[in-house]
Amino acid sequence: MYQPRIGDELAVLDTPSLLVDLDLMEHNIALLQERLHRSHVQLRPHLKTAKCPEIAQILLAAGAIGGCVSKVSEAEVMAQAGIEDLLITSEVVGQPKINRLVQLVEQHPQIKVVVDSLDGAAALDQAFQLVQKPLDILIEIDVGQHRCGIEPGEVAVSFAQQLRQFRCLRLRGIQGYQGHVQLIADSDERERMCRQSMRALTSTVRLLREAGFPLEIVTTGGTGTVELCASYPEVTEVQPGSFLFIDAHYRRVLGPVYTPALTVVSTILSRPAPYRAIIDAGLKSLSIESGMAEPKDRDGLYYQPFGDEHGLLEWTQEVAARGMEQVLKVGDRLELIPSHCDTTINLFDTYYAHRKGKIEAIWSIAARGKVQ
Amino acid sequence: MYQPRIGDELAVLDTPSLLVDLDLMEHNIALLQERLHRSHVQLRPHLKTAKCPEIAQILLAAGAIGGCVSKVSEAEVMAQAGIEDLLITSEVVGQPKINRLVQLVEQHPQIKVVVDSLDGAAALDQAFQLVQKPLDILIEIDVGQHRCGIEPGEVAVSFAQQLRQFRCLRLRGIQGYQGHVQLIADSDERERMCRQSMRALTSTVRLLREAGFPLEIVTTGGTGTVELCASYPEVTEVQPGSFLFIDAHYRRVLGPVYTPALTVVSTILSRPAPYRAIIDAGLKSLSIESGMAEPKDRDGLYYQPFGDEHGLLEWTQEVAARGMEQVLKVGDRLELIPSHCDTTINLFDTYYAHRKGKIEAIWSIAARGKVQ
Repeated sequence: MYQPRIGDELAVLDTPSLLVDLDLMEHNIALLQERLHRSHVQLRPHLKTAKCPEIAQILLAAGAIGGCVSKVSEAEVMAQAGIEDLLITSEVVGQPKINRLVQLVEQHPQIKVVVDSLDGAAALDQAFQLVQKPLDILIEIDVGQHRCGIEPGEVAVSFAQQLRQFRCLRLRGIQGYQGHVQLIADSDERERMCRQSMRALTSTVRLLREAGFPLEIVTTGGTGTVELCASYPEVTEVQPGSFLFIDAHYRRVLGPVYTPALTVVSTILSRPAPYRAIIDAGLKSLSIESGMAEPKDRDGLYYQPFGDEHGLLEWTQEVAARGMEQVLKVGDRLELIPSHCDTTINLFDTYYAHRKGKIEAIWSIAARGKVQ
Repeated sequence: MYQPRIGDELAVLDTPSLLVDLDLMEHNIALLQERLHRSHVQLRPHLKTAKCPEIAQILLAAGAIGGCVSKVSEAEVMAQAGIEDLLITSEVVGQPKINRLVQLVEQHPQIKVVVDSLDGAAALDQAFQLVQKPLDILIEIDVGQHRCGIEPGEVAVSFAQQLRQFRCLRLRGIQGYQGHVQLIADSDERERMCRQSMRALTSTVRLLREAGFPLEIVTTGGTGTVELCASYPEVTEVQPGSFLFIDAHYRRVLGPVYTPALTVVSTILSRPAPYRAIIDAGLKSLSIESGMAEPKDRDGLYYQPFGDEHGLLEWTQEVAARGMEQVLKVGDRLELIPSHCDTTINLFDTYYAHRKGKIEAIWSIAARGKVQ
């Protein structure tokens, strides 16, 4: 098979393939920087979105202080690629994973993890005592998402005090991520909910500092809330990820702030009926938990998956009257904007990064599938 | 990190990991063979489910005549592993993919593809004329799924006659897959719909044979319809895939015929509330388009994803009264039966195949992500 090369046109690519429009991605990065420009916070973007060391390096070059990752296996990929200052934003639990973390932190001591239980902290401490190494930790508090995290306020202070028993754990900060707020469509309601979660976070920060815990790191904020979070003086860093690519879901929520920079290019396989086409991208190419992917620059066309390997495009008679039917022939191609970038990227091995349709870089999605 | 080895207990595995219970998988294979025992049809299992050459070899050893694959890239993986008799069950469209097919068929001439348009057939013929090689094709007809495929009956006969103009295409048979029938929960309705699609298929087969097309291959049938399809004398082979593992969706539909053999093992990360636990398996570990994964051997526990990397387990007060709360501690593990095996397998790189909890084989999911 032909191996696509730098300088090739996108037409050489087999489909489905995952494309990044570099002009648009760079625009999104610049826009976020501009929006954080007058803030005191630092940017530690969540690398779970792009899953790619080369993109992480672009973010570092643009001023990011390091990266967030979700899992130890994701941290391994990024650390291996030279990204040292990493925060693992999920609790690290279970002996196989803790053993992996110990090996990783021995090589990369700037890696930090979050904790939300004494059992979890005790297991980490025990493992790091065996190798006589410290581990930097952040307390995760639940600011309203009701996923992981302990209660804010006095419960968190009491928890921090109990953590003092663990000799190898160094409390560096606190994480309070509002996953439940990012994609609230009504912007007033999003702001209201964000302020509510920020009250929980900032009041806990103040209590902890009063109790003698300096908390160098206070991290929160995703693409949907990052500017508001950055306006709180207690916050030291923010962790947005999706701003890079902006998927169809985020675009619906945020409006035309950022520009979708990620697409899946697909080929029309079959034209079984006047108002339908079957394309070669299904559940294995476009994730659907955040709604349907949207055909790019094709108003009036609607996509849904039709099995693992097929997708259905439908359009109205009105659209057909504009000539769409003539345009969509077997063998034609179109691009679709994923509804959720993180899980769609997780389906591919390679980014084809292009500028105006000419391939400028081919990047391995090295952290794809790193769920451990 | 520790690399799991043959003979290890499952407890050594980091989570989430994908497990195959070999006793149960072998039971499912034997059960399908038993159910097809008195039939004349041959088994060409769909390898899109398992995506793994080692499992394909197990199926061949059990009597399968070859395999089905969805895409050219899937065929490359299986052919490379020595599986020569392959049927690609999706139309092969677009010059990059056709170029890939030509290279593959030059090495592996038993590969067959389906066609459903003259444009598609013409592009294939042109490419194979350049290398002066024949290509075996099957006509795909639409037996009611309304995905790909041309109309059954006289339209198909006329199509077959027009295919005669293509010098390199050898018409070997016909495919009529009833994807719309496999998972109909009401078994009477499933049978009725299957018989309806089989009337379309078998009447077309008879017309084509009367018109002088021998059709050595007539292929249909998935896990939900395979026995009924095999009872039709016109059918020569069937293409079920999910029978190997049986996911939670198929189990709900088919009842206790086969036994779920595939699970994802996950660890409890956090216990934020009395009737909830957070586990380390989310959208990136368990697909959800066919409903929710089901905790194995844990009646009264319900799973849903909570983001890409987390899952939520909930249970009722009644269940808690039986002691579940005590059982589910931070660091405990449980297995979940995926709701859809094909797309869940596509999220992992490795199968850990075990017998009674001891690892017997570690297989690469070599065709994961092969969407092209």
